Amino acid sequence: MSDQVHVFQKRFAVSTRGRGPQEITDYVADIVAESGVRTGTVQVFTHHTSCGLLIGENADPSVCRDLDRFFGKVAPDGDPMFEHDAEGDDDMPAHVRSVLTGVSLGIPVSDGRAALGTWQGIFVWEHRTVPHERRVTVTVTGLRGG
Amino acid sequence: MSDQVHVFQKRFAVSTRGRGPQEITDYVADIVAESGVRTGTVQVFTHHTSCGLLIGENADPSVCRDLDRFFGKVAPDGDPMFEHDAEGDDDMPAHVRSVLTGVSLGIPVSDGRAALGTWQGIFVWEHRTVPHERRVTVTVTGLRGG
Amino acid sequence: MSDQVHVFQKRFAVSTRGRGPQEITDYVADIVAESGVRTGTVQVFTHHTSCGLLIGENADPSVCRDLDRFFGKVAPDGDPMFEHDAEGDDDMPAHVRSVLTGVSLGIPVSDGRAALGTWQGIFVWEHRTVPHERRVTVTVTGLRGG
Repeated sequence: MSDQVHVFQKRFAVSTRGRGPQEITDYVADIVAESGVRTGTVQVFTHHTSCGLLIGENADPSVCRDLDRFFGKVAPDGDPMFEHDAEGDDDMPAHVRSVLTGVSLGIPVSDGRAALGTWQGIFVWEHRTVPHERRVTVTVTGLRGG
Repeated sequence: MSDQVHVFQKRFAVSTRGRGPQEITDYVADIVAESGVRTGTVQVFTHHTSCGLLIGENADPSVCRDLDRFFGKVAPDGDPMFEHDAEGDDDMPAHVRSVLTGVSLGIPVSDGRAALGTWQGIFVWEHRTVPHERRVTVTVTGLRGG
Repeated sequence: MSDQVHVFQKRFAVSTRGRGPQEITDYVADIVAESGVRTGTVQVFTHHTSCGLLIGENADPSVCRDLDRFFGKVAPDGDPMFEHDAEGDDDMPAHVRSVLTGVSLGIPVSDGRAALGTWQGIFVWEHRTVPHERRVTVTVTGLRGG
């Protein structure tokens, strides 16, 4: 039984279906399991500026629909205030929403698992209207012994 | 003097008094001290989808009152836009506010302490109107020697 | 070739020019390079409550101008709703915007570099109207061998 700290890193990509959530809880769970880490932290990161990562309720799909309604209200497509519309009406609102949700998450690892709460799921949130392939890097740091 | 990296993890719960801030700076400080880590990072995480964690000014209580006013304006209770109201008017707004503040924080550890700025405090922010017990996990990773 | 985990921490300060972005991608890249870490994570933290850190598009300057317009709309200076104005009209809006963007970022380190996406840059975002000196701490944790 070793008490040495380990680092394990793996990448994957998800194909989004246009604006809205793509749950990746199982991808992250599998990487944590593969790492062998029992106590530590896991960092989840997406390498883009027009999608985001968030932890939200994953039991009732109406929560995700309402979250998207909220994003639509706080940073609506085609807002004349925005100068940057090189890729269309949803270009700058996607950047704003990406900043609001962020592109990085940290979660504890306990007993060999990502220690999410009962109702917490991990989502890549697509902020563009068109589907994209979104790259995600997961890094697990911690103790394997236990 | 060892230069080996250590990981130390501990959980606690706080009873909130309904909507608003519950400062946990001292809880986190105690866990960092107990870890013996002198240089590294500390991750603070709450296992819920209707409260959040944030770093804010902890000197003047009017800042916290204004923050709550802001949350009330950006995601008001009873907004007819929201579909999800299973637990009442404050249900979906609490989920939205939780996404805006996030449920995870990372702070450096320097000289054996969580290296917060002079005016920075760590808060569990209750987004529901009714008091709840909120679980928090703190993970410290770093060097003990130094 | 060692497979032991290392921790490397360094601080710097940036002088902002008043409200808006100050890119620090190169500062962080240099610290990651100096750390010698090849696989792991980097945490970036700013010790203040009236500026923030964010990852955003760094190719087209209109994105940053639009982000600042967004902040001005969601938390405008001089909002009569705010009680806390000890340091002026931009005091409380700066605290609100700091909470929205956050003061901490986590980024993976891969192949010895902060693994940002093609268009991602790291910014200290000044939320006060007047220039300030903002302190930043960068902590790199991971494997040097590889």
